[in-house]
Amino acid sequence: MGKANKLKPAGKTAPGRAKPALRAIKGGKAPAPKAPPPKAAAKIAAKPANKPVPLKPAPAVADDVPVIALNLPTGKLSPAMTAYFKKCQDRLGFVPNVLVAYAFDNAKLEAFVAMYNDLMLGDSGLSKLEREMIAVAVSSQNRCYYCLTAHGAAVRQYSGNPLLGDQIVMNYRVARLNKRQRAMLDFAVKLTASPWSVEEGDRERLRRAGFSDRDIWDISSIVGFFNMSNRVASATDMRPNTVYHGQAR
Amino acid sequence: MGKANKLKPAGKTAPGRAKPALRAIKGGKAPAPKAPPPKAAAKIAAKPANKPVPLKPAPAVADDVPVIALNLPTGKLSPAMTAYFKKCQDRLGFVPNVLVAYAFDNAKLEAFVAMYNDLMLGDSGLSKLEREMIAVAVSSQNRCYYCLTAHGAAVRQYSGNPLLGDQIVMNYRVARLNKRQRAMLDFAVKLTASPWSVEEGDRERLRRAGFSDRDIWDISSIVGFFNMSNRVASATDMRPNTVYHGQAR
Amino acid sequence: MGKANKLKPAGKTAPGRAKPALRAIKGGKAPAPKAPPPKAAAKIAAKPANKPVPLKPAPAVADDVPVIALNLPTGKLSPAMTAYFKKCQDRLGFVPNVLVAYAFDNAKLEAFVAMYNDLMLGDSGLSKLEREMIAVAVSSQNRCYYCLTAHGAAVRQYSGNPLLGDQIVMNYRVARLNKRQRAMLDFAVKLTASPWSVEEGDRERLRRAGFSDRDIWDISSIVGFFNMSNRVASATDMRPNTVYHGQAR
Amino acid sequence: MGKANKLKPAGKTAPGRAKPALRAIKGGKAPAPKAPPPKAAAKIAAKPANKPVPLKPAPAVADDVPVIALNLPTGKLSPAMTAYFKKCQDRLGFVPNVLVAYAFDNAKLEAFVAMYNDLMLGDSGLSKLEREMIAVAVSSQNRCYYCLTAHGAAVRQYSGNPLLGDQIVMNYRVARLNKRQRAMLDFAVKLTASPWSVEEGDRERLRRAGFSDRDIWDISSIVGFFNMSNRVASATDMRPNTVYHGQAR
Amino acid sequence: MGKANKLKPAGKTAPGRAKPALRAIKGGKAPAPKAPPPKAAAKIAAKPANKPVPLKPAPAVADDVPVIALNLPTGKLSPAMTAYFKKCQDRLGFVPNVLVAYAFDNAKLEAFVAMYNDLMLGDSGLSKLEREMIAVAVSSQNRCYYCLTAHGAAVRQYSGNPLLGDQIVMNYRVARLNKRQRAMLDFAVKLTASPWSVEEGDRERLRRAGFSDRDIWDISSIVGFFNMSNRVASATDMRPNTVYHGQAR
Amino acid sequence: MGKANKLKPAGKTAPGRAKPALRAIKGGKAPAPKAPPPKAAAKIAAKPANKPVPLKPAPAVADDVPVIALNLPTGKLSPAMTAYFKKCQDRLGFVPNVLVAYAFDNAKLEAFVAMYNDLMLGDSGLSKLEREMIAVAVSSQNRCYYCLTAHGAAVRQYSGNPLLGDQIVMNYRVARLNKRQRAMLDFAVKLTASPWSVEEGDRERLRRAGFSDRDIWDISSIVGFFNMSNRVASATDMRPNTVYHGQAR
Repeated sequence: MGKANKLKPAGKTAPGRAKPALRAIKGGKAPAPKAPPPKAAAKIAAKPANKPVPLKPAPAVADDVPVIALNLPTGKLSPAMTAYFKKCQDRLGFVPNVLVAYAFDNAKLEAFVAMYNDLMLGDSGLSKLEREMIAVAVSSQNRCYYCLTAHGAAVRQYSGNPLLGDQIVMNYRVARLNKRQRAMLDFAVKLTASPWSVEEGDRERLRRAGFSDRDIWDISSIVGFFNMSNRVASATDMRPNTVYHGQAR
Repeated sequence: MGKANKLKPAGKTAPGRAKPALRAIKGGKAPAPKAPPPKAAAKIAAKPANKPVPLKPAPAVADDVPVIALNLPTGKLSPAMTAYFKKCQDRLGFVPNVLVAYAFDNAKLEAFVAMYNDLMLGDSGLSKLEREMIAVAVSSQNRCYYCLTAHGAAVRQYSGNPLLGDQIVMNYRVARLNKRQRAMLDFAVKLTASPWSVEEGDRERLRRAGFSDRDIWDISSIVGFFNMSNRVASATDMRPNTVYHGQAR
Repeated sequence: MGKANKLKPAGKTAPGRAKPALRAIKGGKAPAPKAPPPKAAAKIAAKPANKPVPLKPAPAVADDVPVIALNLPTGKLSPAMTAYFKKCQDRLGFVPNVLVAYAFDNAKLEAFVAMYNDLMLGDSGLSKLEREMIAVAVSSQNRCYYCLTAHGAAVRQYSGNPLLGDQIVMNYRVARLNKRQRAMLDFAVKLTASPWSVEEGDRERLRRAGFSDRDIWDISSIVGFFNMSNRVASATDMRPNTVYHGQAR
Repeated sequence: MGKANKLKPAGKTAPGRAKPALRAIKGGKAPAPKAPPPKAAAKIAAKPANKPVPLKPAPAVADDVPVIALNLPTGKLSPAMTAYFKKCQDRLGFVPNVLVAYAFDNAKLEAFVAMYNDLMLGDSGLSKLEREMIAVAVSSQNRCYYCLTAHGAAVRQYSGNPLLGDQIVMNYRVARLNKRQRAMLDFAVKLTASPWSVEEGDRERLRRAGFSDRDIWDISSIVGFFNMSNRVASATDMRPNTVYHGQAR
Repeated sequence: MGKANKLKPAGKTAPGRAKPALRAIKGGKAPAPKAPPPKAAAKIAAKPANKPVPLKPAPAVADDVPVIALNLPTGKLSPAMTAYFKKCQDRLGFVPNVLVAYAFDNAKLEAFVAMYNDLMLGDSGLSKLEREMIAVAVSSQNRCYYCLTAHGAAVRQYSGNPLLGDQIVMNYRVARLNKRQRAMLDFAVKLTASPWSVEEGDRERLRRAGFSDRDIWDISSIVGFFNMSNRVASATDMRPNTVYHGQAR
Repeated sequence: MGKANKLKPAGKTAPGRAKPALRAIKGGKAPAPKAPPPKAAAKIAAKPANKPVPLKPAPAVADDVPVIALNLPTGKLSPAMTAYFKKCQDRLGFVPNVLVAYAFDNAKLEAFVAMYNDLMLGDSGLSKLEREMIAVAVSSQNRCYYCLTAHGAAVRQYSGNPLLGDQIVMNYRVARLNKRQRAMLDFAVKLTASPWSVEEGDRERLRRAGFSDRDIWDISSIVGFFNMSNRVASATDMRPNTVYHGQAR
């Protein structure tokens, strides 16, 4: 693969199970796509018939091919990132498409991964579920398809409660949250929608709900991070791995 | 059940399968709720722990008990509505909670059902899938939990494409629609967000996309209808039947 | 009248007095229109002169011809609806144009009339004036010409206070309302403008202002109904009967 | 009248006919108010009864007493302003309440009157009707009760078309305007709602609709002026003279 | 200068120092412009190079030539206005461009100057600094380049605190204000952004912060005034005198 | 300094010149603050007097003490970050406060610095000036005091045009940009204000303005990055180094 036409997601032949997907990333031979070419896919849609004719002209797997709507040159991954992609493949059965998208430039990929892993998986007073809840509440405000899909699945998984994921995707106010979590998401959505209006009173509300100043930093950073990645995803029409849709239902 | 404390959804003991649910509606003996009382349920939420402790303190079934946050007197259904509820139970395995909510007053229920069935199931140049797509696009703009859940499931079912349902719930612009459907949803969302700004140019765009004047009436009426029911649902905290969440995934 | 070009309002020859208007609805011979054809009317407007030249090129009666901007096939009214139209004509001197518009399809007309009459004229803890006040406050938020005109007139009539009608049309906050009515309209406008943000606190505010849970249902349903009909009216450029403008001044 | 409690409008005893109203302005003895004291008036409102009980506890005349919600010291009018008020009284039968409000300070009144008269009555390529149309379109965007009432009446008067006044009050897009007037009001509303977004393209649209650069200045100045007076009126709860409501219907 | 092509600012040859600038206003011979013609200036911008090539193709002085984007006929100033311009030149070293812009019509200029000077320099319970703070907070909400530049400089000068000027230009909430000033700017921004929502509670907040009813009038009038001039400036692309940018830094 | 009360900026004793500032970061002895303690500073503001009394109760230097409104534990910098801070101090004369803020946690600091330097200083088809222009346009939309101050200074420096910095801070539409830069900032502001609405047409507009797909990625990433840091800054009340205000004027 000299110069990729459009970035292709890894592991498409069998979403949900491990496959030699990193070849596509590393420059190896990509598996022959079974899906129609993207242009065609984009044009095939529900037949405007009177009867409920299924709108499934191509297998759903085609929805994230290409991963983004930009034609970027192929990059070369560092050994660390190659190992990281392999780890994703082994543990998740696929490489998240946001990583596939960033992989055109190893430095950008590494900076993104470092920040993401620190915020979402590193040490914090917030549980991993709470961090994912913030990710989804922010992404709902910004109506980001990629992040709602990927992190909605994470909320379903971490909570073991499929409804909670759907609720935060749709309107976090309907979720049956405790006071701490409600305060956290209220802050997250306000900071997303009108950052200029956040003031000491808002921080005080978080403190009264039991959050430390360090927790406030973490909440703010996660809100900030998804306000960034929501925009990168929307700007590039980034497509979530199809497998996310059905996870932990 | 002399005077219901709060409306209870039908068929809770086994969501997804037929049960003698209409008793709850008709005044018979409701099945003993296994879920905790609503107040308690509202307070149980994700433990703000550091580790991803599952946030599932009560079975998910409890989420739609009570159906709405208003304490309404029990109503008496007409034979026609009783038969209609039985038909729902037989065919769907449950009575949609919106009907349970309206059932406190038979006249209101009948008016709602008549309008709903005419718009969504009656004769029209729009396919049933297209009508459900409008329902979801409008409900996404209004962030209505009830309608997004129930009609998101309908889009998944009619289209046979689970992704399409999720996409319109999140942001209809990412769905791979044909021109006709895109024009239809653009109109629906504009009419929802800023009805005062809809003018002849907007109708012309629909005509150019192949819609007849009668189709434009139907699109407008469906957009109007969901702008109504989104608000009734939000105002009363109406809860969708839990079974919807997993349908047609 | 085999196939109506555009729906024509009933009783145009003498707005305000009874005329055989239903002919136009039922397919009889419509009275010869004295107004210029619609296209021409749309083009005649204020002469951009320096002096205050009256902008009244055609009699004002022409403003609601046609009733809507869609060319719909003529429908056939049921005996019940025929009688209802006759009753309107006898009591009001005209058939409200919204009914004329819906009359292209008897099933749609009946569903609309059933819901409207239940909500606005049926049994409720809200006075008819209060229901009309909600209609106007919602329609003001949505800037709906048809509903502001027709229901603004109703507020003037029910209240006997012409100013109250104008105030709610323009900005309900300037009306000298009691606490109950203010709480009611605050809720109505919030539910209209940001339905996703309505929560238990909002219902509590209504209860504290003296409303029962059943009243809250009624307020919510009326708010919902006008959010529907505002959109049908705006989407179709529905024109209010000219007679409304001067009523109860 | 040593220190006025609240500014009282002139000519209240007989709105619509000439009365010795300037006494109230000049410090003479104000006519004994027949209306209840303002506080009481504010509390009397529609009885929340089930039947349409008229909401008219006090004569409508009370609505503009006091003229504004601020308690300002009495001012002394210059001979020029005294003559101007007399002229208003003689020609209109009343002094517009905005002048009554400004009269607490002669310098402010004179500056307001000079600017108002130049813009609305001075030499311009815009007809007086067009200037009033701008006033109403701007005031509708800002939902200003005072200006919509007073200038809505002016549009009705200048145009001889009561509907036109109502339409621009409610939503100028429904008025049957010619292209020039539509371009003018589109510009006015955009400049009101998002002044930061007005650019050369917007001025070009006006030029293409036949406006000169001087006309563009005049449109902009009138838009600016009503964005000012809308805010002074809203900030002070300024009440329009009751007589306006029924004028030119 | 028979008929000015576009209004030219006074004193351009040496911004910041006194020059015979009024000639340009009065119809005398304008100094030969050293700046490139406006069209060209508008097209020269930062070279989209990879290296930080300075974006300064023409001296910054050219930015306010012409003063506005409208081609207006030259006006004739009254002796009073001629003297006023001379006073500006003597004291400030330049005539503010807003005056240059209004100078095409002496009556408009005089009305503007009378109102401006009364509000910003006349007797009031508000300090001159406070009035300028309001001007900047309003102009920030409206993103008005002219007023932010000219009145931002005034805040820097009156306060002797360059940071305060920048803070109110950017987001007044970050300025370290006392309670009185914070209440004042909160009111100013609310009245600017949503004038329809200002009510007695807002006035009460000002009173509790120590403002008299007369102060409330003054705050409201200044807010109104800048909502006017922000729009005149934006509608005409009015350019602030270049000298403002560096003042009192 | 065992446990810092609040983060203190480096180099406060002489902003603009090199000082042993890293001590404050590394845990050394901070210079004795000459400014009043923060609480007091927040309360001292313009005397609400009638006369323009300067509002400069404390030296302006105090404005960025503390750097943020959170009380975070002191962190330990890696040798790389220590060297980086020293480099800042040597080259700029100060350490930017955003770095001081992040320094409580070395991993977070390193991730931030890696991403920032790649985006703003790394290889790209965008000039450094263009990247700073994006930073300022985004921060203006979000009204972020920190970023507008720091990156406004950068635009002034890179462009050599002080006006350009002010213009993008206030309203980028008034800057005299070439088509490429205007398209770039239009995209940046749209992606900031309504990310959900960005689609292929927006990317096409950038391509037509001469941007490659890689450029589009870079623009999007920079927009995303400042949407992140704007929120971290607003959420924590981050204060820019005072020295920025006067730079490159």
